[in-house]
Amino acid sequence: MYKLSYEYLFELVKQKNDLELNRQLEKTHPADIAEIINDLPSDFAFYVFAKLTDEMASDVIAELNDEAKETILDRVKEARLIRIIDEMETDEAADILSDLKDEISSKVLENIDKVDSDSIKDLLTYDEESAGGLMKTEIISVNRKMKRDELIDDIRGKYSDIENIHYIFVIDDDEKLIGVLEVVRLLLAQENNIAEDLMEKEVLFAPVTMDQEKVARIFRKYDLFVLPVVDEKGKLLGRITVDDIIDVIDDEASEDAYKMVGLENEDKVFTSPLNSVKKRLPWLTLNLFTALIVSSVVGIFEQTIAKLSILAVLMPIVAGLGGNSGTQTLTVITRGIALGELTIHNTYKAIFKEVLVGIINGVLIGTFAIILAYLLKGQILLGVVLGVAMVANMFIAGFFGAVVPVIMKSLKLDPALASSVIITMLTDIGGFASFLGLATILL
Amino acid sequence: MYKLSYEYLFELVKQKNDLELNRQLEKTHPADIAEIINDLPSDFAFYVFAKLTDEMASDVIAELNDEAKETILDRVKEARLIRIIDEMETDEAADILSDLKDEISSKVLENIDKVDSDSIKDLLTYDEESAGGLMKTEIISVNRKMKRDELIDDIRGKYSDIENIHYIFVIDDDEKLIGVLEVVRLLLAQENNIAEDLMEKEVLFAPVTMDQEKVARIFRKYDLFVLPVVDEKGKLLGRITVDDIIDVIDDEASEDAYKMVGLENEDKVFTSPLNSVKKRLPWLTLNLFTALIVSSVVGIFEQTIAKLSILAVLMPIVAGLGGNSGTQTLTVITRGIALGELTIHNTYKAIFKEVLVGIINGVLIGTFAIILAYLLKGQILLGVVLGVAMVANMFIAGFFGAVVPVIMKSLKLDPALASSVIITMLTDIGGFASFLGLATILL
Repeated sequence: MYKLSYEYLFELVKQKNDLELNRQLEKTHPADIAEIINDLPSDFAFYVFAKLTDEMASDVIAELNDEAKETILDRVKEARLIRIIDEMETDEAADILSDLKDEISSKVLENIDKVDSDSIKDLLTYDEESAGGLMKTEIISVNRKMKRDELIDDIRGKYSDIENIHYIFVIDDDEKLIGVLEVVRLLLAQENNIAEDLMEKEVLFAPVTMDQEKVARIFRKYDLFVLPVVDEKGKLLGRITVDDIIDVIDDEASEDAYKMVGLENEDKVFTSPLNSVKKRLPWLTLNLFTALIVSSVVGIFEQTIAKLSILAVLMPIVAGLGGNSGTQTLTVITRGIALGELTIHNTYKAIFKEVLVGIINGVLIGTFAIILAYLLKGQILLGVVLGVAMVANMFIAGFFGAVVPVIMKSLKLDPALASSVIITMLTDIGGFASFLGLATILL
Repeated sequence: MYKLSYEYLFELVKQKNDLELNRQLEKTHPADIAEIINDLPSDFAFYVFAKLTDEMASDVIAELNDEAKETILDRVKEARLIRIIDEMETDEAADILSDLKDEISSKVLENIDKVDSDSIKDLLTYDEESAGGLMKTEIISVNRKMKRDELIDDIRGKYSDIENIHYIFVIDDDEKLIGVLEVVRLLLAQENNIAEDLMEKEVLFAPVTMDQEKVARIFRKYDLFVLPVVDEKGKLLGRITVDDIIDVIDDEASEDAYKMVGLENEDKVFTSPLNSVKKRLPWLTLNLFTALIVSSVVGIFEQTIAKLSILAVLMPIVAGLGGNSGTQTLTVITRGIALGELTIHNTYKAIFKEVLVGIINGVLIGTFAIILAYLLKGQILLGVVLGVAMVANMFIAGFFGAVVPVIMKSLKLDPALASSVIITMLTDIGGFASFLGLATILL
């Protein structure tokens, strides 16, 4: 596989060495070109893009990151855009069109191939995060009565327009999906075999409205490469390929990691600073309020602190460990939910386990803290207060870290929304209140 | 697709209704059976497993979670185990064998099909997290000079032993990989075509030692279904299929989420409590020490707090917001690194952006805090101290949240190791020191 370097391409653009530039682009994989364009300054990026053939450009654009895609789409001429989109698979074309202004998008739809245009219009009606939003309509569907050689001729006719033909889909006279046929079986078939004889009847499919996370779970569970999509009557509409599912899995993993710390999915490494500020501010404001609640809990014990300022010095220890321990539990549980490991049959076991782990860790770390407090400060009672508060707070961490996401899930809310800000608030309150409360009583 | 319910299967086992149980298991997909076995009490789980045919059992066992797999493998008789493993694909057999005791594993290897046994022994020599650890040796490789009908006959001979034959791999006389041939192209080929004419010459492959994360990145970037694996001389050894890559992507996403909060990958929802305690304790101990460092920073200002106990009440606000803001930046950057969005050409931009976002958010939230402090406590100077400390700490959060994982990466350490514990320590210190320091000077 030929590999073009960023530095070399950069030089070629700088020198405007078009001859060599074209030669290089021709032998480089579109995904590699896209990777370089992502990093180029926008003028250079557009210069390179302008050199690509329409077909190559259609492959490259599908692989660009959001920022680079926007830059290019803003500058490309309408006539070229139409030719490029005409070369794309329907699912990619629909993705691009949904990002364009309405008047440009309808102009494109008027001017590309009619069949594709109709398919794309249909695709645009589905939720982007559903099976319909993921599927492409390029598919080989054959009637159940078709003979081997008819099937082969049918594939031959469509071969140049469709990528990844590994399965063909068998439908009945009402266009209902009734089976799937691996191409290799057709290769090994006898002349008198018909589609029905060769197909696998136990066929998995996704309803067109199914959420993408569920679709991904089907791919994962049954180790699939391709999954057909049907409407409510069972009519075959399209297929989802596994490469698009990998994107879904990446997005969902980012989303989970993001929600946990109150980030929105569109807040990427290179989102503009002002956009990032706008997206993070509401959550930080929420955080300011949870911090005020925590602060007011500490306020209850202000008199105690005024008498014994060492408490203010030690109190972050209990809160800090509780916070980290709670986030650990939260992560284990939300990840278990995301991967489908937690079911109604086993959730109580998981909560019980996390509470137990919290208590045991609390006892161990608490004991350690007592010893340290004694060695460092020579204070046994203060150490005991610290240790007992630690156990209490680790219990709180284990309990809420497990229960909050489970409750979220049962309320059909996203479990990852039980983000660290909630858990940290609870463990902060737990830590400060138990430590300062005990100190008020005992010291 | 037939769907068996947990409750119904549970009842069948309870009633020992073997006739119906067998009927149900026969028509259920192995992945669905595995899902139910995962949740069953271990006696029930083994009872169901014992009813499965060897072939079905080999499919089911590959889909079980770690706990259920261990329970089953502990109890299954050696003779049955040998028959089951004989039915498996080589990569799955190698995974199972690496979990078994050495004497059992070598007994199995002696008694299964010789060719498979040799392949599995080879597979066991590779690092589990490398291309070699992911690949299976079931592959169709053909000489470049083979004619169309010879190729078809070759596939026919191996068809029953190999799943997912969508590509065949073309080798030269030295067994070196020189091309890949889609089955559909063979289907459409002329009788006089030879492998060389039909194959794609620009072939992607993974060296056998390549790290699995890199392999996953190749699949992701080039939208692959299957990738051949070669040794250092270019000799074809096996192939990796995309379903195994989805597992890698899931594992890596879990790993990143886990490392961020100091968890180990094997610490799952149903890991035994004592194992979880053992795995989390070292990190919590480290956390105890970072908390002590933070505490000792607060200790420097003990006199100030003794005079003005309201400071102890307000100080968690600055630290808390800094901690959350820092974890946000950390998450954006580590996720960007994981998905390959950060390169040497753009990292400085990302750091600069995060610092800027931190400062802007600090100014906004800080101003808000000043107003709140004035409204709630009627104190303007205290509010200013709070606000300025907030800006300082948000700057610290943005800077270290971005720089620490980047440094980790450039030291070839895992960026996710720049876990929340380090960032929280830095923002805690930053928050307490700036707030208490400013207060000492100004109040």
